[in-house]
Amino acid sequence: MNNNQLTESGQLRHFLTIEGLKKPLLTEIMDRAEQFSGITNRQVKKVPILRGKTIVNLFFENSTRTRSTFELAAKRLSADVMNFNISTSATSKGESLLDTLHNLESMHTDMFVVRHNQSGAAEFIAQHVSPHVSVINAGDGCHAHPTQAMLDMFTIRRHKKSFPDLRVAIVGDILHSRVARSQIQALATLGVGEIRVIGPKTLLPADCQTLGVHVYHDMEAGLEGVDVIIMLRLQLERMQGALIPSAREYFHCFGLTDDKLKLAKPDAIVMHPGPINRGVEIASSVADGPQSVILEQVTHGIAVRMAVMSMAMGAQSEQNELPA
Amino acid sequence: MNNNQLTESGQLRHFLTIEGLKKPLLTEIMDRAEQFSGITNRQVKKVPILRGKTIVNLFFENSTRTRSTFELAAKRLSADVMNFNISTSATSKGESLLDTLHNLESMHTDMFVVRHNQSGAAEFIAQHVSPHVSVINAGDGCHAHPTQAMLDMFTIRRHKKSFPDLRVAIVGDILHSRVARSQIQALATLGVGEIRVIGPKTLLPADCQTLGVHVYHDMEAGLEGVDVIIMLRLQLERMQGALIPSAREYFHCFGLTDDKLKLAKPDAIVMHPGPINRGVEIASSVADGPQSVILEQVTHGIAVRMAVMSMAMGAQSEQNELPA
Amino acid sequence: MNNNQLTESGQLRHFLTIEGLKKPLLTEIMDRAEQFSGITNRQVKKVPILRGKTIVNLFFENSTRTRSTFELAAKRLSADVMNFNISTSATSKGESLLDTLHNLESMHTDMFVVRHNQSGAAEFIAQHVSPHVSVINAGDGCHAHPTQAMLDMFTIRRHKKSFPDLRVAIVGDILHSRVARSQIQALATLGVGEIRVIGPKTLLPADCQTLGVHVYHDMEAGLEGVDVIIMLRLQLERMQGALIPSAREYFHCFGLTDDKLKLAKPDAIVMHPGPINRGVEIASSVADGPQSVILEQVTHGIAVRMAVMSMAMGAQSEQNELPA
Repeated sequence: MNNNQLTESGQLRHFLTIEGLKKPLLTEIMDRAEQFSGITNRQVKKVPILRGKTIVNLFFENSTRTRSTFELAAKRLSADVMNFNISTSATSKGESLLDTLHNLESMHTDMFVVRHNQSGAAEFIAQHVSPHVSVINAGDGCHAHPTQAMLDMFTIRRHKKSFPDLRVAIVGDILHSRVARSQIQALATLGVGEIRVIGPKTLLPADCQTLGVHVYHDMEAGLEGVDVIIMLRLQLERMQGALIPSAREYFHCFGLTDDKLKLAKPDAIVMHPGPINRGVEIASSVADGPQSVILEQVTHGIAVRMAVMSMAMGAQSEQNELPA
Repeated sequence: MNNNQLTESGQLRHFLTIEGLKKPLLTEIMDRAEQFSGITNRQVKKVPILRGKTIVNLFFENSTRTRSTFELAAKRLSADVMNFNISTSATSKGESLLDTLHNLESMHTDMFVVRHNQSGAAEFIAQHVSPHVSVINAGDGCHAHPTQAMLDMFTIRRHKKSFPDLRVAIVGDILHSRVARSQIQALATLGVGEIRVIGPKTLLPADCQTLGVHVYHDMEAGLEGVDVIIMLRLQLERMQGALIPSAREYFHCFGLTDDKLKLAKPDAIVMHPGPINRGVEIASSVADGPQSVILEQVTHGIAVRMAVMSMAMGAQSEQNELPA
Repeated sequence: MNNNQLTESGQLRHFLTIEGLKKPLLTEIMDRAEQFSGITNRQVKKVPILRGKTIVNLFFENSTRTRSTFELAAKRLSADVMNFNISTSATSKGESLLDTLHNLESMHTDMFVVRHNQSGAAEFIAQHVSPHVSVINAGDGCHAHPTQAMLDMFTIRRHKKSFPDLRVAIVGDILHSRVARSQIQALATLGVGEIRVIGPKTLLPADCQTLGVHVYHDMEAGLEGVDVIIMLRLQLERMQGALIPSAREYFHCFGLTDDKLKLAKPDAIVMHPGPINRGVEIASSVADGPQSVILEQVTHGIAVRMAVMSMAMGAQSEQNELPA
């Protein structure tokens, strides 16, 4: 895959996948997010960086929560936001996807935030947009969810400082998870010491070894001595057929309980992309406990999305307007 | 019930119910609304009081009209508004209400405007939000609708000046009406001379006497000499079983006609929270007649909601920015 | 029909139909759109002309695309926008249309953008609104779609300069097309040399002659020597009964192909209001070819709507704020 998300000078033009991005760029996203993080605590949580820009939330797959985080990030950058739920609009009149895209572009819109249930959709759209439009992948099929991965990296950095010393475990349905794929790529790029994936054989990809991760089917063994535990959401709606015996059985084997958490380092943090299934992949006592940083992830999600959006809208014009 | 809608110094932090609020606070809301009322007549109907604040319309019960009045009020205060229709979003993925709330809070939102078909929902949410979030009750079950009550009080004050001299009649389905409950509490707190409720026995609460109101089952008798007539909407959708014989019969007994209106004082005003059922609870000639102030109520609803929102967002920072 | 869309001094108060408007007014709309056209290419695509104004998108007929163009135009004029999908809101509670209108007016809204599947709906609403509200027709039944017609005129003027020298052909389902009716009126008012309509007998209105147009049932003959070809969308959803044999047959007779396009002047432009049905009314090679200005039409739609909205909001206050 040609990495068409970068400009010739290596700046972020689209944000489609972590794959192929270098460590300095991921660090730049986190540094930029750190700046925005301060803004969301101020009385007036707005900066004029994207004033007069039009951002289109192009959601082919319904997700109120993800849409809201992008909408908030855009509004706090002072952009105008247009929500476009494709399943209920133009395509119902038989218009092709590309015609819809070209129409939206022709309205002088500046950015498409794309959510789609098919892998590669954001990439496809990015290949076909005009030079003035940036595409942000808000999740495509089982492929990638790069803003989620970066908010996770940002959260880890807030708590752990240096990536190379870390052992990170990702637990659950790796196979169907765009979140996990993007996380593994980001962790690897940032040079994390050891990446472990933990899950039943039916929920791990066949090519696990080539991803450079250590595979565990036994959760107790996998959690031993880790610094970061990333629980994945059990996508009950995606399960077709009998990949897991039951939610109860799943919790018994791969749910994070207080007891299992004790196997990790004492200062290990617990993460989850949300929404959580209490009692399925995580016990309430852990989700609400002192090691959980799940709600911090939500907070950081706004700052990271502001960072990515502002970077994609063009480094040169932004730097003049960045908050002091 | 501990009145947790006030700060320790007695300022409005949440606005959940009229119950337990003192007269000076109700008066402050009306005085503040009077200031905002001028703004909505100006060329530029916006003030920067809530600029950079994020207000979430958290509607568990669909109500385009009520949502719109809060949305307009928020936008005229320059806030960013996020509409969140809960029935169609996160909870469909199995997330609990409290997890949804904590997620929204973590996005640095500042206010939840809550509409719910269960009594006590806004109160419950207010008990669980972070210190930086205010909750406004936009109607909960049969319990309370305090902004509606205050816009009604504001409308009465505009026409009648002094509350103690007034006789006010509320007509209709008192039993199921959150509007009526909040109105009665507000009228009593403001010291209205006499509060009457008029309706069939099946639509009056059993504890009517304890509310400090005079009960009439005969509309003619009840309207005799009143200054203000508040008609309630007949909630046809809430009627289960045969509490009323028919809409036609209801109109005959408890619909407000020109003839019945003549029994009130000549300068009596006619109010209705809307949307009206013409020919069911009110005759068109009365709804559109010279004594009707129904559309004024809608207008005042914006100013009153601006007042409550700005007060809840914190007296100290507002006073510096209030329009001259 | 009394032309109630103009003020006594001849300024545009509502924009309901092209019928009855004079050439200087249509020219003024295009000149104004030319000014706004520059804005949409700037870094900050916003002007403060309608700051503090509230525009209501009152859509009785769902149309995400048309709603979006009006929403964008309004936001680029800095107005606040409230989307109101009537089919799913107040009327479901049994409220009458006029009561809904009067309620929205009472919230100090300034403009209604109306879309309705019944001819005359915008006109009806304009007759009943308060003096402070302007109504823009965003398409009513088979009657009129004046902003679409004006963006088409603007697009033609961009390419062809002088209207009197032109031959313009409109092809397709003239009978059911509010777009075609408004286009014919605009072309006639601007003094276009020859207007042709091309279509099967079943899709042409009976009174075609009285419209001052030349009628062709043979597409080849109709396209001979024209400067502008306007293809109409085949409203498959409106076809009830067998007005056309099949989409395939239709394309054979009235679809625009490269071969048929060669019959027009070499510099003829091809237009379509969108969304296009590829292979039904137009071949992809033509829609995406060098003579197509279909996407330009979309771009101009924003500028033309900004023009009409700003004019309707009152000439006097605007002129002070118009961009230099």
